[in-house]
Amino acid sequence: MSIPVPPVPSFPPAPFTLTSVPGLKAAGVKAGIKASGNPDVALLVSDAPMSCAGIFTQNHFAAAPVTISKAHLVRSGGQVRAVIINSGNANACTGAQGDKDALEMCTRVAQAIGCPVEQVLVCSTGVIGVKLPMEKVREGIDLAVKELSSEVEAGRRFLSAIMTTDAFPKEFGAQHNGATIAGVCKGAGMIEPNMATMLAFVATDWDLRTEQLKRSLPTIAATSFNAVHVDTHTSTNDTFLLFSTKKVHAPHDWMKHVEPVAHRLSWLIARDGEGATKVTTIEVTGAATEDAAKNIAKRVASSALVRTALFGNDPNWGRFTSQVGNAPEVRNAKALTCLLQGIEVFKAGEPTNFDRTAASKAMAVEDVKLELKLNDGPGRAVLMTSDLGYRYVQVNAEYTT
Amino acid sequence: MSIPVPPVPSFPPAPFTLTSVPGLKAAGVKAGIKASGNPDVALLVSDAPMSCAGIFTQNHFAAAPVTISKAHLVRSGGQVRAVIINSGNANACTGAQGDKDALEMCTRVAQAIGCPVEQVLVCSTGVIGVKLPMEKVREGIDLAVKELSSEVEAGRRFLSAIMTTDAFPKEFGAQHNGATIAGVCKGAGMIEPNMATMLAFVATDWDLRTEQLKRSLPTIAATSFNAVHVDTHTSTNDTFLLFSTKKVHAPHDWMKHVEPVAHRLSWLIARDGEGATKVTTIEVTGAATEDAAKNIAKRVASSALVRTALFGNDPNWGRFTSQVGNAPEVRNAKALTCLLQGIEVFKAGEPTNFDRTAASKAMAVEDVKLELKLNDGPGRAVLMTSDLGYRYVQVNAEYTT
Repeated sequence: MSIPVPPVPSFPPAPFTLTSVPGLKAAGVKAGIKASGNPDVALLVSDAPMSCAGIFTQNHFAAAPVTISKAHLVRSGGQVRAVIINSGNANACTGAQGDKDALEMCTRVAQAIGCPVEQVLVCSTGVIGVKLPMEKVREGIDLAVKELSSEVEAGRRFLSAIMTTDAFPKEFGAQHNGATIAGVCKGAGMIEPNMATMLAFVATDWDLRTEQLKRSLPTIAATSFNAVHVDTHTSTNDTFLLFSTKKVHAPHDWMKHVEPVAHRLSWLIARDGEGATKVTTIEVTGAATEDAAKNIAKRVASSALVRTALFGNDPNWGRFTSQVGNAPEVRNAKALTCLLQGIEVFKAGEPTNFDRTAASKAMAVEDVKLELKLNDGPGRAVLMTSDLGYRYVQVNAEYTT
Repeated sequence: MSIPVPPVPSFPPAPFTLTSVPGLKAAGVKAGIKASGNPDVALLVSDAPMSCAGIFTQNHFAAAPVTISKAHLVRSGGQVRAVIINSGNANACTGAQGDKDALEMCTRVAQAIGCPVEQVLVCSTGVIGVKLPMEKVREGIDLAVKELSSEVEAGRRFLSAIMTTDAFPKEFGAQHNGATIAGVCKGAGMIEPNMATMLAFVATDWDLRTEQLKRSLPTIAATSFNAVHVDTHTSTNDTFLLFSTKKVHAPHDWMKHVEPVAHRLSWLIARDGEGATKVTTIEVTGAATEDAAKNIAKRVASSALVRTALFGNDPNWGRFTSQVGNAPEVRNAKALTCLLQGIEVFKAGEPTNFDRTAASKAMAVEDVKLELKLNDGPGRAVLMTSDLGYRYVQVNAEYTT
């Protein structure tokens, strides 16, 4: 039998990218860090200090750039001028030299654009456990500074320079009353620790204080990047930064316009699981608490058996409900109802007499909805997961050797 | 690319099977429950009430036979005469009719062999959500009663009649000073809820009281069946029963002879993951507590990324250590040392300069050891997991449709 390789999905270019946001310039250049010769140094610079808040990996092995960026955010009071990113090397598990190198990247940018070093953040993504080739990184930074531009094409080059194993570029944006919200990200649904770090940058020209961004960021992440749950791995380098260039008065409901941008970006990450064919949105309702709902949804989302069933368009209610049955958070499992693409496949502890062929057909789409309804309380959670197919095994079994 | 299908492993017949234990008779017959026509009704009967203790699934959707067997163990004071098993249908998610059918199976056996109904336990394994074909089950029970025998071949027929998706039969036994310990089990490492329920039966003729069995069972299971952790699924029907036919005086250290039998049986289950090529034993030491060690080991064992790396003989230290880095139970991750087949691949937060080719070669065996050493405390845990390859996806994506 031959391995069915699903086609790489293609999405029309987003209407807006990071450089569409007034006040931002970007660059993406080839510094030779990647053996492939693809772009690998990206730089984002604002014309004046912008408000910034960030969410970073919780991994105990957080990489050097994560440590430095967190420190700089604190020291600058969340007012930053630039972010420097390299791909092809994560600068993780690199000891004291790693910290030194990450700091040097910031210093070099700060000197070039003329700002305090703490106003520069740094991100890295790529192989871990290997020291950064600093000669190349320095040259890349110098070149990127020269090529900074507010053109859309510069934003696209920035995006291409942060990508690693991504099957396609990920960007999205929107405008509301003359203000722009735009973002780019990189990472694949299977969030693997060596390469598929998740990096996401969302910016708006709405005038928002750092405190406002900080307060809203957890909520925005909860329905977007933190709602992608396909493996239990989180990377050493995961970073999500939110910026405001402070050009236009912000409406009180600004968050509801930023959320869809972050959500679409995170959907693209889930869609880009190695060999994934769809994104499945799992909604748990009626759990005892919100935390209970989240834990139940995670249990379903991270199951290899659930994910292979999704890949095979198999309306295998036994796998979905069994994961709920395994969750210690569930009180009355017999009340469980399970809907797959709106089709009731399980009700009150027993399967319904649904049409398997129709249900399977309904699953053969890019966006699948799996609803798990309990009757324990008001707890609700929504997660996105990727399916797991042959290509996943191929990519992950044959990765480094 | 074609899917490399690993050869089905074959193991020499075990020296002992259940009927090797004095006092036990068994049968395995074809009742037509399975469409394949393979044996599907198994019966185990002792000549006198035997001590019995059991461990059952924690799944909220525990099947009818689990409910009935638990009740019978309580009502009989752990003194049982028989276990009746059917394969091909799990009698799970079958409502009130399911309970009635499971009870009828016990009643029919009790009447045939002449004992109170609570001295008969019942197990089922197979598809879930479908009512038992009771006509066939009744005929199967009657036939099994007639064919009861203490011959080794009868024990082998018993074993074949409890199997479902198993790639090979699983049995093991030993003798010590004239006493026999023997066991059989069924189930595949990928413990999938529809078919691969884990059923295990271990018996000895050592004279042990029910209380002794009950007290020891959690310890025995902890290093065997509960140490197999490959997916987060546990089935609706999982059952492990331990019997004593009470013929020979038991030494004080009887447990240390029962444990290896249970361990070997559970190893065979891990070995039988769909398309698995090896069993990996994950040992976490130096965790803050035993629970912490267990949680860290589970996180590593259930990761699809870890399991694909094991399949690919990829000494991908990043995947192994990253899972430790993700565990909230870890205090000082920078102290982590990781050994793969005795080769130190990671030390004090950084990869070592190990020989990748040699490490990969060392992984290409049937028994792989992965050691994760922390320095947080005395906590230790050992788990077994299966690798995840192409066949896993094939079997699980194309299972029911």
